[in-house]
Amino acid sequence: MLSFFKVGNRISEELLEQIAAALKQLEKQKGQTFGDAKNPLLVSVRSGSVTSMPGMMDTILNLGLNDVTVQGLAELTSNEKFAYDCYRRLMQMFGNVVMGIESYHFEQLLHRLKEKEGVEQDQDVTAVGWKLLIDEYKKCILAKTGLDFPQHVYKQLRMAVEAVFKSWNNQRAQIYRKINRIPDEQGTAVNIQSMVFGNMGGNCGTGVVFTRNPSTGENTFFGEYLINAQGEDVVAGIRTPLAIVSLKNEIPEIYEQLFAVSKQLEKHYKDMQDIEFTVENNKLYLLQTRNGKRNAQAALKIAVDLVHEGLLTKQEAVGRIEVSHLDQLLHRGIEEEAVKDVLVKGLPASPGAAVGQIVFDADTAAEWNRAGKTVVLARNETTPEDIHGLIASEGVLTSRGGMTSHAAVVARGMGKPCVCGCEDIRIVLEEKCMFAGSRVVEEGDWITLDGATGRVIIGAMPLREARMTDELLIMLNWADEISTLKVYANADNPEDAKIARQLGAQGIGLCRTEHMFFSPTRLPVVQRMILADDKAERLQALSQLLPMQQSDFEDMFEEMDSLPVTIRLLDPPLHEFLPNLEDLQRRHAQLSYDKDGSDLEKDEVTHLLRKVQALHEANPMLGQRGCRLGIVYPEIYDMQIEAIFRAASSCIDRGIRVLPEIMIPLVGHVNELKILRELVESVAEQVLGNDKLRDCPYKVGTMIEVPRAALTARQIVAHADFFSFGTNDLTQMTFGYSRDDAEGKFLTHYVDQKLLPHNPFQVLDTEGVGQLIDLAVNVGRFVKPSLKTGICGEHGGDKESIFFCHLTGLDYVSCSPYRIPLARIAAAQAFIQYGVPSEQKVAQVV
Amino acid sequence: MLSFFKVGNRISEELLEQIAAALKQLEKQKGQTFGDAKNPLLVSVRSGSVTSMPGMMDTILNLGLNDVTVQGLAELTSNEKFAYDCYRRLMQMFGNVVMGIESYHFEQLLHRLKEKEGVEQDQDVTAVGWKLLIDEYKKCILAKTGLDFPQHVYKQLRMAVEAVFKSWNNQRAQIYRKINRIPDEQGTAVNIQSMVFGNMGGNCGTGVVFTRNPSTGENTFFGEYLINAQGEDVVAGIRTPLAIVSLKNEIPEIYEQLFAVSKQLEKHYKDMQDIEFTVENNKLYLLQTRNGKRNAQAALKIAVDLVHEGLLTKQEAVGRIEVSHLDQLLHRGIEEEAVKDVLVKGLPASPGAAVGQIVFDADTAAEWNRAGKTVVLARNETTPEDIHGLIASEGVLTSRGGMTSHAAVVARGMGKPCVCGCEDIRIVLEEKCMFAGSRVVEEGDWITLDGATGRVIIGAMPLREARMTDELLIMLNWADEISTLKVYANADNPEDAKIARQLGAQGIGLCRTEHMFFSPTRLPVVQRMILADDKAERLQALSQLLPMQQSDFEDMFEEMDSLPVTIRLLDPPLHEFLPNLEDLQRRHAQLSYDKDGSDLEKDEVTHLLRKVQALHEANPMLGQRGCRLGIVYPEIYDMQIEAIFRAASSCIDRGIRVLPEIMIPLVGHVNELKILRELVESVAEQVLGNDKLRDCPYKVGTMIEVPRAALTARQIVAHADFFSFGTNDLTQMTFGYSRDDAEGKFLTHYVDQKLLPHNPFQVLDTEGVGQLIDLAVNVGRFVKPSLKTGICGEHGGDKESIFFCHLTGLDYVSCSPYRIPLARIAAAQAFIQYGVPSEQKVAQVV
Repeated sequence: MLSFFKVGNRISEELLEQIAAALKQLEKQKGQTFGDAKNPLLVSVRSGSVTSMPGMMDTILNLGLNDVTVQGLAELTSNEKFAYDCYRRLMQMFGNVVMGIESYHFEQLLHRLKEKEGVEQDQDVTAVGWKLLIDEYKKCILAKTGLDFPQHVYKQLRMAVEAVFKSWNNQRAQIYRKINRIPDEQGTAVNIQSMVFGNMGGNCGTGVVFTRNPSTGENTFFGEYLINAQGEDVVAGIRTPLAIVSLKNEIPEIYEQLFAVSKQLEKHYKDMQDIEFTVENNKLYLLQTRNGKRNAQAALKIAVDLVHEGLLTKQEAVGRIEVSHLDQLLHRGIEEEAVKDVLVKGLPASPGAAVGQIVFDADTAAEWNRAGKTVVLARNETTPEDIHGLIASEGVLTSRGGMTSHAAVVARGMGKPCVCGCEDIRIVLEEKCMFAGSRVVEEGDWITLDGATGRVIIGAMPLREARMTDELLIMLNWADEISTLKVYANADNPEDAKIARQLGAQGIGLCRTEHMFFSPTRLPVVQRMILADDKAERLQALSQLLPMQQSDFEDMFEEMDSLPVTIRLLDPPLHEFLPNLEDLQRRHAQLSYDKDGSDLEKDEVTHLLRKVQALHEANPMLGQRGCRLGIVYPEIYDMQIEAIFRAASSCIDRGIRVLPEIMIPLVGHVNELKILRELVESVAEQVLGNDKLRDCPYKVGTMIEVPRAALTARQIVAHADFFSFGTNDLTQMTFGYSRDDAEGKFLTHYVDQKLLPHNPFQVLDTEGVGQLIDLAVNVGRFVKPSLKTGICGEHGGDKESIFFCHLTGLDYVSCSPYRIPLARIAAAQAFIQYGVPSEQKVAQVV
Repeated sequence: MLSFFKVGNRISEELLEQIAAALKQLEKQKGQTFGDAKNPLLVSVRSGSVTSMPGMMDTILNLGLNDVTVQGLAELTSNEKFAYDCYRRLMQMFGNVVMGIESYHFEQLLHRLKEKEGVEQDQDVTAVGWKLLIDEYKKCILAKTGLDFPQHVYKQLRMAVEAVFKSWNNQRAQIYRKINRIPDEQGTAVNIQSMVFGNMGGNCGTGVVFTRNPSTGENTFFGEYLINAQGEDVVAGIRTPLAIVSLKNEIPEIYEQLFAVSKQLEKHYKDMQDIEFTVENNKLYLLQTRNGKRNAQAALKIAVDLVHEGLLTKQEAVGRIEVSHLDQLLHRGIEEEAVKDVLVKGLPASPGAAVGQIVFDADTAAEWNRAGKTVVLARNETTPEDIHGLIASEGVLTSRGGMTSHAAVVARGMGKPCVCGCEDIRIVLEEKCMFAGSRVVEEGDWITLDGATGRVIIGAMPLREARMTDELLIMLNWADEISTLKVYANADNPEDAKIARQLGAQGIGLCRTEHMFFSPTRLPVVQRMILADDKAERLQALSQLLPMQQSDFEDMFEEMDSLPVTIRLLDPPLHEFLPNLEDLQRRHAQLSYDKDGSDLEKDEVTHLLRKVQALHEANPMLGQRGCRLGIVYPEIYDMQIEAIFRAASSCIDRGIRVLPEIMIPLVGHVNELKILRELVESVAEQVLGNDKLRDCPYKVGTMIEVPRAALTARQIVAHADFFSFGTNDLTQMTFGYSRDDAEGKFLTHYVDQKLLPHNPFQVLDTEGVGQLIDLAVNVGRFVKPSLKTGICGEHGGDKESIFFCHLTGLDYVSCSPYRIPLARIAAAQAFIQYGVPSEQKVAQVV
């Protein structure tokens, strides 16, 4: 009953011939003829895209109806009202998605008709009414497009097929593909099916079922349906549909049949299925089945269950996890104690918690988001036109539509919280506010959505970090069994280190010592150190910092007992620890013009201003920072190194196994590392003495974050035990982009205009930056096979970038604690996809 | 008569044995014994370094004298006064250079002795006086060092030899080697010679001759001598020596003999010789000969003459030019009309003109230079301790010493102007001023030195750019015959283009269009363009700029008729055209606190401030500039491209042959170039039409200045007709150095501490940056053999960098107009040294 064409992206004469031939087969099967006046075949055209995506044309029903065949259908079914309902549905859908007329024009006409007939529901409109509406629709189409609604049925078909293909390049579909990283070249197929009708009366209906619950993953049959309806009625969210269990009572034999065939399909595809069905005169038809969309927790549960049910191997299960969705599991949850004021409750359509300022239209959402605000979008219902607003929002709230409504599906796809079908609220767009009973929420008010329970809460609730579910733990263990790439954490303090270890970190890949400098009790000491007029004064301040740093490191070592802790020595330019230049200048000007300020303050501000001006740099990113500081002011690094080894010594005394790895930032020339390595070695010997040195197998390595370091890896590796790629800075320098200046300015423009495939700060640029990494790893390993390699930029938590790291043969990726589970899954998936990274590369270097 | 040891850098037992053995030979030759009481052999120890360098120990005379042998010498020569003079000289010299006692201690004692004896000249001191002085010297040496002057003659010799080797690593010698790029590893040799004496009386003397004039290159015998003197008397500048021609009259047979042997040596070494000689009792001895130092003009003239005399080939002559000295020929000359107030006249010791604020000590010179001032150093005489002051100065003036004095030799070596022996001035260090008759010049006053005529002029004279000498023209033509690398110019306006063409540029490699925007008449229009609130307003301002840019380009094309002109589209960030943020903030604060400012001004300043803040960037080097501007605001590039092709069209109409090469700056991704190339092509077609397009064979290419561009050259080359390496920015990004922040801060530290071999902004870093250039050239040529390649950073005018460009097989280097002759010579020398750059490289890429 299905005819299926998988093609490229364009429609050709050849394709039209194929369609005509296939149609012949359908006609033969059904004993009907397309366009025939007496016994007309009707078909639907449906996108055959593997994943549905917003903006993509999904389905056009009832093709083949025109002024003549509609009469044939009426006679054939002895149901004039039904036939004309189908015809007006075709015109409405075709007019909208093929001919580009906005749907509200048709809805207005329909609304007027119902007023005229004095009915509330579409089903109650009479045949006469439908005929009148069809005339109105014809006029409307002519007025809006200058074209008649096509009476030629092959023309209808051709235009519908073309519309599917065109919609692939629809802007919203492009945006969706961009955020979901689906290649534009993939293209779509088109399916042509003969029609069955759910809108022929009370023993007809249509619906959508999932073989398991797509929100929780539970192995329960799940879905919605409407009696006497066509497909779009269910998904459009205009009538609120019934839960599928009701069908069990209403038409038990259909329910049983549906349940049995669904389970069979699940077993066949080895995955949870999303199935569209129609019941025509008590006969069940399946229109489509595909792997069902689900949220992260559901995906995990389903995959784990399928392994336990023997349907999947562990590798298949791990390979199937959509890592980007794990975010939603790992970040959101409301601190229950804080919840006071639950406004209303809707359907829990996509789990997780969203906190933001409420807005009522997509444009405002996008605009406020660009201005740096966090927003929650509330709409009566969402349409594909709202996609940019959904992207810009933390979560989405709708007053209409069920668990399979547009808002729910898209939000789940994006891993964003969603509460939908929240019928107790009323949004008044003109007044930019929302009513819930007697209460009013105005644009800009803070609200919190709880997608897991469906609650809408007034105010910005504090969020708690997510707990690991059992399924996630199981899956992560499987992942670790599979992967060869280790996952470390970027953690700057003992609390983060603890969380990282709980989430499965196998070490600390980046501990930024400067973050320890920013705490309110220390900053004054750090500032004293910077403002020191001579070395003696500086040493004095440093000696105060020493015990503080030592205790930080002790706590870190304790948390990470027996695991490596990579400590980066001071990196940022010193002026970052001092007051802002502009502020100081303003204060200075004030003090000069006001007569109030005390002379003492004036002197202090003047002195500070002079120092800040002296440290001011035209391009601080490329200035005196990293090891350039450590070489010009060796006493700073000296103190830090001493603190590390004193901490190590004290931990060793307490029976803790310490594995410090000291990382020198921003090395660009071998001599920088050479000198600083000597410093580390001499301090280590001094602090630990020969005996303890044996218990403290420390490493010294460097961040590779300056292009020149990668290019001269052959020299640098001689003094390095490890290379850690600082891909944030490496990306900045390789592209010549200052991240602060690029994002939100030209870089956004570049990504929007597809000049760049991704934002290179989110997804590693394998062509350019990756080339440098590849070079450094290969040359480094060739010279020193024992070299340890990893990355510690933000890319360490990005799936595609992790795949690259696996392929390049790195030993580890290091990422922020909450991305560790994601990285563990991705590391396993990389192995599943590519196997052991090739060792032939080394040969290329020779 | 010479004994010669060439060794590494250290003294070993083995070497001491060799010295002893060689000494035996000398003893045999002379029939004297080293340290013998009756017939003592005396020797000198002399550095055998190929080039003399400041701080290096040059010579110690009279070794072998002690309290016993001095009596032997007195008896042997029947000249007690002479013998004790020799002994005190040894103690003075040895005490200073070997034992490290500052010379003024000895000079003070000598001065007192002369006062006591009532004589003015050293020669008039009696033998008794010398004996007394020797006692004083002994006490002085013991007091200052705690050691006795060594009586053991072998100990003297050993210490002297060691001192020579040690002086190689003397700080001043290191600095000299750094600026002259002499490798530290080269090391020095030591020569030991038996003594002859120029201080035995009136028929003795010592001097220095050059076989040709080292200032002009003329083929005239040139030099100075002193009767009854030892070597150091001539070079120390304490007694002003006589010109060598006087010797012709005084002792004609010695003069003839000296002249003949000098010419013979010149012929042998095929180069102008610098010869030290001594006459002992009317017998001529040559102590040393080496290739003479000379200034640029002299070097050229000598080389050209030697070719014409048949002693050198053209290649040898070109290969011998020290390109760094050409600077001095190509930059300096005083506008004669401006000269009003000549203070005094001295010896024209090193040509060229220097303008600066006068200072009287080396430390101040160095300090003021660091503070950005230009200084001229004036000293009574310079010593090796002054080297840092000489480096920091534009030129040097001395009141004492001749053409071979320390100041003169060092200044010529550095290619800096020098006026010396200016006996009419008196410098009073304590008062920081200089007297010339009744006139006073104070520290900080502006003066001008004319090294070509010896004039010292009050005030800062305007300088005229140098004219090409005949010898330079000849040499440059020879260079062009030899070299394969072309030399283009960086020129931003028709005046520079004209000069560049006169200096032999074969095209313009970089025309920075933004420099045209900064002229006072245009800046307001440019600012209006930037401040425009919408595109229409911006277009309006651009349309005003169009005819201005067009006329610039017409003039450029006209000057460069038939030669390529590479025009870079707008590069700097827009805020560079607006007032400085700090100034605006200050003015804004003033207007807020003062009540005077008009409301109009307040509004204007507020508006401007807001725009400047919006354009403000954290790291402008890596921000919205280059093609990122052209892509976000295509109308700007559109205007520039239109102006280029309109100018081309108008020139074609006037019969001028135009070869525009449009250069897109800061490309980092192939798509940037692709889009902008399309823009160029469409504008070209629009402006020129098909017919004229044929007469305007334009190219479109890119600057390779972002590391990613080099790394992805394979993609980028598809849309590029040429690659021009912007090595300034490429160096900044490859090293991660902001030049503005690095120079004078950590980079200076790095170069001083030898962490880096050179400042990479002066000498191309071949290891890192060069690797990227090599990669891009090879991949680019492999994909597109017709690809044109060049560099347009400052390195285009640096010799070592030019050698790299030749080896990499670039088509051209582009440099500032006045460095073109230098670059032409360097290009030829690169060919002479390396031949045709290897073509095998392309094969490596495959």
